[in-house]
Amino acid sequence: MSEVVKVVVDAMGGDYAPQEPVHAAVEAVKENSEIFVYLTGIEEQIQQELKKYQYPTDRIEIVPTTEVIETAEPPVNAIRKKKDSSIVVGQTMVRKGEADAFISSGSTGAVLVGGQVIVGRIKGVERPPLAPLIPTKDGVALLIDCGANVDARPSHLVQFAKMGSIYMENVVGIKNPRVAIVNIGAEEEKGNALVKETFPLLKETKGINFIGSIEARDIPAGYADVIVCEAFVGNVILKLYEGVGATLISKVKSGMMTSLRSKIGALLVKPALKKTLKSFDASEHGGAPLLGLKGLVVKTHGSASYVEIKNGIKQCLQFKKQGINEKIKEHIQEV
Amino acid sequence: MSEVVKVVVDAMGGDYAPQEPVHAAVEAVKENSEIFVYLTGIEEQIQQELKKYQYPTDRIEIVPTTEVIETAEPPVNAIRKKKDSSIVVGQTMVRKGEADAFISSGSTGAVLVGGQVIVGRIKGVERPPLAPLIPTKDGVALLIDCGANVDARPSHLVQFAKMGSIYMENVVGIKNPRVAIVNIGAEEEKGNALVKETFPLLKETKGINFIGSIEARDIPAGYADVIVCEAFVGNVILKLYEGVGATLISKVKSGMMTSLRSKIGALLVKPALKKTLKSFDASEHGGAPLLGLKGLVVKTHGSASYVEIKNGIKQCLQFKKQGINEKIKEHIQEV
Repeated sequence: MSEVVKVVVDAMGGDYAPQEPVHAAVEAVKENSEIFVYLTGIEEQIQQELKKYQYPTDRIEIVPTTEVIETAEPPVNAIRKKKDSSIVVGQTMVRKGEADAFISSGSTGAVLVGGQVIVGRIKGVERPPLAPLIPTKDGVALLIDCGANVDARPSHLVQFAKMGSIYMENVVGIKNPRVAIVNIGAEEEKGNALVKETFPLLKETKGINFIGSIEARDIPAGYADVIVCEAFVGNVILKLYEGVGATLISKVKSGMMTSLRSKIGALLVKPALKKTLKSFDASEHGGAPLLGLKGLVVKTHGSASYVEIKNGIKQCLQFKKQGINEKIKEHIQEV
Repeated sequence: MSEVVKVVVDAMGGDYAPQEPVHAAVEAVKENSEIFVYLTGIEEQIQQELKKYQYPTDRIEIVPTTEVIETAEPPVNAIRKKKDSSIVVGQTMVRKGEADAFISSGSTGAVLVGGQVIVGRIKGVERPPLAPLIPTKDGVALLIDCGANVDARPSHLVQFAKMGSIYMENVVGIKNPRVAIVNIGAEEEKGNALVKETFPLLKETKGINFIGSIEARDIPAGYADVIVCEAFVGNVILKLYEGVGATLISKVKSGMMTSLRSKIGALLVKPALKKTLKSFDASEHGGAPLLGLKGLVVKTHGSASYVEIKNGIKQCLQFKKQGINEKIKEHIQEV
C-alpha cells in the first residue's frame, strides 16, 4: 500500500454540518484507499451521521471536541478563546504533523486566522493567499488572492504568482500555466500604483510563465491560468462571478417562462442546459487552498455539499503527493 | 417651442463611425423636437451618411474638422496635438457654451482627458468620475467611478456618492437612490484602507441615502442604486460584468445545441430568451456620463450602435432639463 494522506475534516463547519462533511468523508475514503480522514467535532453528532453509512471504518476516526466557532464570531477572538473547537483542534493536528491537511466549510475568517496563527507560514512566505479555482469558458483558473488581508505589497503578489503556478501545474495539471496580473488595460504603463510596481517584478521572475496584464473581461474567457491580484480586488472578482452568474441564470429561467411556446422549449432544453451550467459552477471545483502554510488548509463554501468537500479532500491528496509545499519552499526564496 | 438642447456628436468616434453616430443623430432629432445635434468630423464622410436619411435638416449641423484621434494614441498627446480633431473641437464648443453636451464612442482616454483639460471641472469637484449604468435584476445601477484616474482619496468617493445620487434621482428617475460602497464584507470594520476611511464620511454626508457596504455578489441583484468605488475596482466590476455575461450566454447557447431534443427546445425559447437577455445588456442603457464637468461629456461603447448613441443623446436632454450641473454645484460644496 502506498503512503496514506491524513486529512482533518471540520465536521462542525458550514451550513449543512455535520451531515455534509461526514458524508464527504465517507465518500472520500470509499473512493480512494490512500485517504484517511479525522473528523473533528461533537462526537455524538458525528457518530449519529456515520451510522448511516457503510465504509472502511479503519480509515475514519473521530477526534472529539466540545466547542464550535460560529460564522459571525470575530475570528481572532474565536481562535484565541475556543481552544477545544473543531477548527483549532484540527489545525493544531496539522501543525504537529499528525495530519497533512485541514478542510472546513466553517467561518472563513477563523479558518484563515487559524491557518496563519496555528499552522504557520512556510519560512520566506510573506503572506499566505487564499486561492479558489474559478470556472472559465473551457476550464478553470486560479484566482490568487481572495483572502482577508487586503492592501498587499508588490513582493506579496510576486509570491502569489510563484505559488499559484506551482499549484496549477501540479495539482490541477496545467503545464506551464499562464500567469497574468489583473489590470484596467493591456499596456504596461496602465494600472494603479501596486500593479505598476509589480508588473516589472513579475517580468523578471524566473520559473513562471508571465503573459502580462489581464482585463477582467478576459478572465471568464480563459485567457490566463493564474490570475494574480490583491485580495480586495480578488474578493470583488470572486463574488461578482457568483452574482452575475446567479442573476443571469435566474433571468434566463424566467425568460423561458414568458409564453407557452417558450415553456415547452424550456422543458426540452432543461437537461442539456443543466449540465452546461454545472460546468460553470464554482462549487464543482472543490475548495480554495490557503497556500504557503506548513501544511495544507482548504476552505470550502459555507453552503458546500458533500461533493464539494469530497473534491476538496481529493485535492489534499494531490497536494501532498505532488509535494507542493516542498516545491513552494524551494521556489519562494529564489528571485 | 421649449428650449433646445444642443448636443455635439463625435461623428468619427467608435468602431462604426461615421455610420452609427450619424444615424443616431438623425433618429434623435426625429424622435425629439427639443434636440439639436452638431456633428463634428470629416465633412464629406458625414454628408455622405446624412444623404441616406430624411430628417429635419434645421436641427443637424456639420462642424467640419480635419483630424481624427485613433483609439491607440496616447490620450494626453492626442488632445494636445490634434487641435482640429472631432473630439477637441466638440469639447471646445461645450467649454465655450456653444453646446450643452458632447458624446463620443471614440478613444476613452482622449474623451476623459479632454473632458478634464478642455471642458474643465465644476469649481469644488476634485475628480470627475466616469459613471456607467449597469444592468441589475430588475433595473439599473450607477457604477461610479470607472474612469482612468485610479488610487482615489476618501473625499473623491464622497463626491462620487453625491454626484451619483443627483444623477440617479434626476436623470434615471429613482427617488432617494440607495448609495452603497463596494466592500468585501457587510461589516463597517471590513475593507481596505480607502474603504475604512471613506465609510464614516459617507455615513455623515447629508443629502444622500447611504445604506452601507455592498458585496460584489449583491450588485447584480440590485441591492443599491449608486455603487461607489475607486476606479480600478469599478473598471474590474464593469468589465467582469461583460465577461461573465458573454461567457455564460455562449455556454447557454452551446448547451442548447448538444442534442436534437435541446435543439428543438432552443428554437422555441429563442425569441423569449433574446428579449430577456437584451434587458441585461449594458449597451441598451446609453452612455456613461463623465460627471462634475462644466458641461456634459458622455462616453458610449467603442462598438456602440446608433441605438446606444441615440439613447446617450436623450440622456443629455434629460441632464440639461433637470439642471444636473446646477444641482452638483449646489451640493458639492456642502459637507
